[in-house]
Amino acid sequence: MYRTTTCGALRSNDIGSVVTLSGWVQKTRDKGFMIWVDLRDRYGITQLIFDEDRTPKEIMESAKNLGREYVIQVTGKVIERASKNPSIPTGDIEILVTELIVLNQAKTPPFTIENETDGGEDLRMKYRYLDIRRNPIKENLIFRHKVTLEVRKYLSYEGFIEVETPYLIKSTPEGARDFVVPSRMNAGQFYALPQSPQTFKQLLMVGGMDKYFQIVKCFRDEDLRADRQPEFTQIDCEMAFVEQEDVLNTFEGLTKHLLKEIKGVAVEKFPRMTYNEAMQRYGNDKPDIRFGMEFGELNDVAQHKNFNVFNNAELVVGIAVPGGNNYSRKEIDKLINWVKRPQIGALGMVYVRCNEDGSYKSSVDKFYNQEDLAKWAEKTGANTGDLICVLSGEKDKVRAQLSALRMELAERLGLRNPNVFAPLWVVDFPLLEWDEETQRYHAMHHPFTSPKPEQIPLLKTNPGAVKANAYDLVLNGNEIGGGSIRIHDKQTQAMMFDYLGFTPEEAKEQFGFLMNAFEYGAPPHGGIAFGLDRLVAILGGQETIRDFIAFPKNNSGRDVMIDAPAKIDQEQLKELHLSIEK
Amino acid sequence: MYRTTTCGALRSNDIGSVVTLSGWVQKTRDKGFMIWVDLRDRYGITQLIFDEDRTPKEIMESAKNLGREYVIQVTGKVIERASKNPSIPTGDIEILVTELIVLNQAKTPPFTIENETDGGEDLRMKYRYLDIRRNPIKENLIFRHKVTLEVRKYLSYEGFIEVETPYLIKSTPEGARDFVVPSRMNAGQFYALPQSPQTFKQLLMVGGMDKYFQIVKCFRDEDLRADRQPEFTQIDCEMAFVEQEDVLNTFEGLTKHLLKEIKGVAVEKFPRMTYNEAMQRYGNDKPDIRFGMEFGELNDVAQHKNFNVFNNAELVVGIAVPGGNNYSRKEIDKLINWVKRPQIGALGMVYVRCNEDGSYKSSVDKFYNQEDLAKWAEKTGANTGDLICVLSGEKDKVRAQLSALRMELAERLGLRNPNVFAPLWVVDFPLLEWDEETQRYHAMHHPFTSPKPEQIPLLKTNPGAVKANAYDLVLNGNEIGGGSIRIHDKQTQAMMFDYLGFTPEEAKEQFGFLMNAFEYGAPPHGGIAFGLDRLVAILGGQETIRDFIAFPKNNSGRDVMIDAPAKIDQEQLKELHLSIEK
Repeated sequence: MYRTTTCGALRSNDIGSVVTLSGWVQKTRDKGFMIWVDLRDRYGITQLIFDEDRTPKEIMESAKNLGREYVIQVTGKVIERASKNPSIPTGDIEILVTELIVLNQAKTPPFTIENETDGGEDLRMKYRYLDIRRNPIKENLIFRHKVTLEVRKYLSYEGFIEVETPYLIKSTPEGARDFVVPSRMNAGQFYALPQSPQTFKQLLMVGGMDKYFQIVKCFRDEDLRADRQPEFTQIDCEMAFVEQEDVLNTFEGLTKHLLKEIKGVAVEKFPRMTYNEAMQRYGNDKPDIRFGMEFGELNDVAQHKNFNVFNNAELVVGIAVPGGNNYSRKEIDKLINWVKRPQIGALGMVYVRCNEDGSYKSSVDKFYNQEDLAKWAEKTGANTGDLICVLSGEKDKVRAQLSALRMELAERLGLRNPNVFAPLWVVDFPLLEWDEETQRYHAMHHPFTSPKPEQIPLLKTNPGAVKANAYDLVLNGNEIGGGSIRIHDKQTQAMMFDYLGFTPEEAKEQFGFLMNAFEYGAPPHGGIAFGLDRLVAILGGQETIRDFIAFPKNNSGRDVMIDAPAKIDQEQLKELHLSIEK
Repeated sequence: MYRTTTCGALRSNDIGSVVTLSGWVQKTRDKGFMIWVDLRDRYGITQLIFDEDRTPKEIMESAKNLGREYVIQVTGKVIERASKNPSIPTGDIEILVTELIVLNQAKTPPFTIENETDGGEDLRMKYRYLDIRRNPIKENLIFRHKVTLEVRKYLSYEGFIEVETPYLIKSTPEGARDFVVPSRMNAGQFYALPQSPQTFKQLLMVGGMDKYFQIVKCFRDEDLRADRQPEFTQIDCEMAFVEQEDVLNTFEGLTKHLLKEIKGVAVEKFPRMTYNEAMQRYGNDKPDIRFGMEFGELNDVAQHKNFNVFNNAELVVGIAVPGGNNYSRKEIDKLINWVKRPQIGALGMVYVRCNEDGSYKSSVDKFYNQEDLAKWAEKTGANTGDLICVLSGEKDKVRAQLSALRMELAERLGLRNPNVFAPLWVVDFPLLEWDEETQRYHAMHHPFTSPKPEQIPLLKTNPGAVKANAYDLVLNGNEIGGGSIRIHDKQTQAMMFDYLGFTPEEAKEQFGFLMNAFEYGAPPHGGIAFGLDRLVAILGGQETIRDFIAFPKNNSGRDVMIDAPAKIDQEQLKELHLSIEK
């Protein structure tokens, strides 16, 4: 038996008892006649004491040689601590050690095992097993476990069944790139790893397995952007005999439960907003509504006044920055440069200072008088002391630019409080989106999403305007879940495939099993999938997902700890009927 | 809203209420003036009634055209049934339908959607989404969900943390073949899919994440035998600062909990048996101890009696078949032919009838007298009325043969009751096993298993005799879990790799990260992994795993429903820097 209790358990009412503990040496303080050791395990830290008067000499000697991160086992008596440490739960006691066994030595770790470490990202990833010893990472992983357990409990209680769907499936060129797996037994053929269990969960609905969920790994071979992982985890859900309203209510329930159980936060009914409204009010389909700064469209009041930049713009739109009139000219210039960076891409920014005396001072005073500017203030909701920032140009671009500015300013103003949770349903997404590169429409959600039935005729005349029964759950400016009501009849599905540029042969080869299934009594169905990595990060009050994943990959898709991917044996390649192109 | 309740919910106290149901048409009985329809959903069956007097004519008409597996929505009044059906929970009521909507039509399914179907295995797999509609499959999947939920609840309660480990890892030639995943971004390099999260869970222990578990898919590219799947699910567990005893107690607790919660079966402390003892008493390292028929070794009493078959054998061993003296000569001949089949491979079988009068009649009376045979009866525990079956030959082979016979006879005698649960720990497994093909020792469990420390010197002199701190949990003759105490120091691990034929370079390339990790303070640790598919099947009283998997693959590793694996685009191959060898 390596321990009778853990390093986080002992309290003053344990004083007098003899215990055995095992763990890692967090730090030692050697005063010569007295040595203190902080012993750490998953559960906490307990102070050990060795002293010349009470500790046998050879143990004293042994304690002097303990290095950081040594693994030791000690037995001793729980005694009251002379100077208590109220900042840790075991701070009232210490262990007077009578036996000490070094279970394993340790080289000096390449970075400090502390809450704030001196290790950079690369080093931490290479030695992830040491990084996990640090409280922030360890706590994140435990937090993730708690979230998934609550998800499972809640959904199970609601009658959902977790069903495992296969990982070795079939490649479909639609969407992102698949990772593929060569088959040894079927020469020249490949499995694909699922980008999501989409078709399988729909088949489960056809199979009568109403109310499915699964917490499941998914895979996308994308060129990685920051904070994307080639493998990621979804909470995947589907229900039969439901309309959008049923799905929204069910998963609003789940999200409320998580906020309540995990964060102790009670949230009333989640607000809903259409996609169009979100784009108009926030320039973004996943608006952060923890704060205001809503868009004010200014075309009516800013165009046709001789300012050609605005006159030629599809959209003129501004936001009011609370207290922004404090900004110095230099600070405003910085802001203008910020929106002009290539990542944002604005050509310039017009601003209006809302002075305390009710007057306005703008960068375009040549073209606009006080009365004009008062209308801008009204449209953007600006008060005295605010700064109105105005961008103009092509509608989609300028919305994205102003949305980025809004988020940046909110961040600077401390309005993105990670302890405030503001969920929002965005509904009525467009069915299709135009792809400049291929010059055709793509499915915005995926090709199984149902158009709103009454809008199907619009597909012929104005496809971009067709809305789908598709919805996203947004939390604090992040999309944490998205789903839709699906197509459940073969004709509509065939029409959609045709619309998306599949030949009937391609559609049959890739999705024939699904279209066949639709002929044998498919029920109406719909669902949602949550991105677990991001959900957990946001609930944890953070926005980067990497530290909520035990063993993440870097931006080149590599696991630098195990050094994967790697070459494989020629023999293996041969068995797989493959050769590598130089 | 598609329904106000489900097809399994209504009882006689609902009589009088108006409800809406949705589901599938299980069957219709059309008497002309009256039509009954059994409506089915995940939750049960409710009878609908349409009758000339009370049902509007157009609905009557519509009802006449309903086919099997049509998806319909009905609204109507709950009424008392004229002839009640006590065999279903809703058997007291029926729905007098006032509205009928056909939500989707259905082609006639290729097999009947009944508990006993007329569909063969191949057809059922191709239309798995229809097969899942059948109660037995549906119930198996729900059962599986319940088991995994209980596992998660129990382990979480015990302080275990579920941590997701990566799926895109690194190929290692040890063990079975890996499935590999070509990397597009790293030309000529591959990820591998995990055969188990073994090294990652050990790294979690090094990382201080004491008490880990995960229910996780694993992958093995093996030539498939019956009832093996290329992807399978493990309950994977690991603990730090534990000895074998701690691991055994923890997972005995889990297994007891499952038997209790899932099956309502209370089991006392699980018996334990060493590997050697299991082989001697049952000829098998996963003995079914629901019944006796233990092996009696007969070398002492059967050799040196002029019967050269026995004299030349390494082992002479028998079992007593209860009541087997009833077998006719013809039946015994059949038994002899059964053991001589190539799958079993015995050269013959000697038998002894234990007559009611206390006398014996054997097939080798020429060589053995009554006194000799009485000793055989004593050794095998045979009573009057039994039949003693004796095999002889090389020890390992004859044990396997007699074990197969023992299981076959128990099956015929009805001694393998699926409602009886007899768990057993088999401990002290050999560290190594000899491989005839490569003429060297392989790790019996895996190369990370710790030899019993006191036996390490034996590795030099008698490697086959070295025992490991390795254990299997056996349930009803099936290995449902297996694990070991691991090596946790670099020297022992390097020695093991060396012993298993890795050069230091190979060991470093493949497992360098683990051996490095061992230098930074690795705690003693150990764990276990359960095969979930089999565990669930056995708890469910069955032995084939396929019907506990939603979308299984066939014996060629193909998913016949989606037709995977399949060819991929030339473009995809090119992006992956691969070409196919003809």
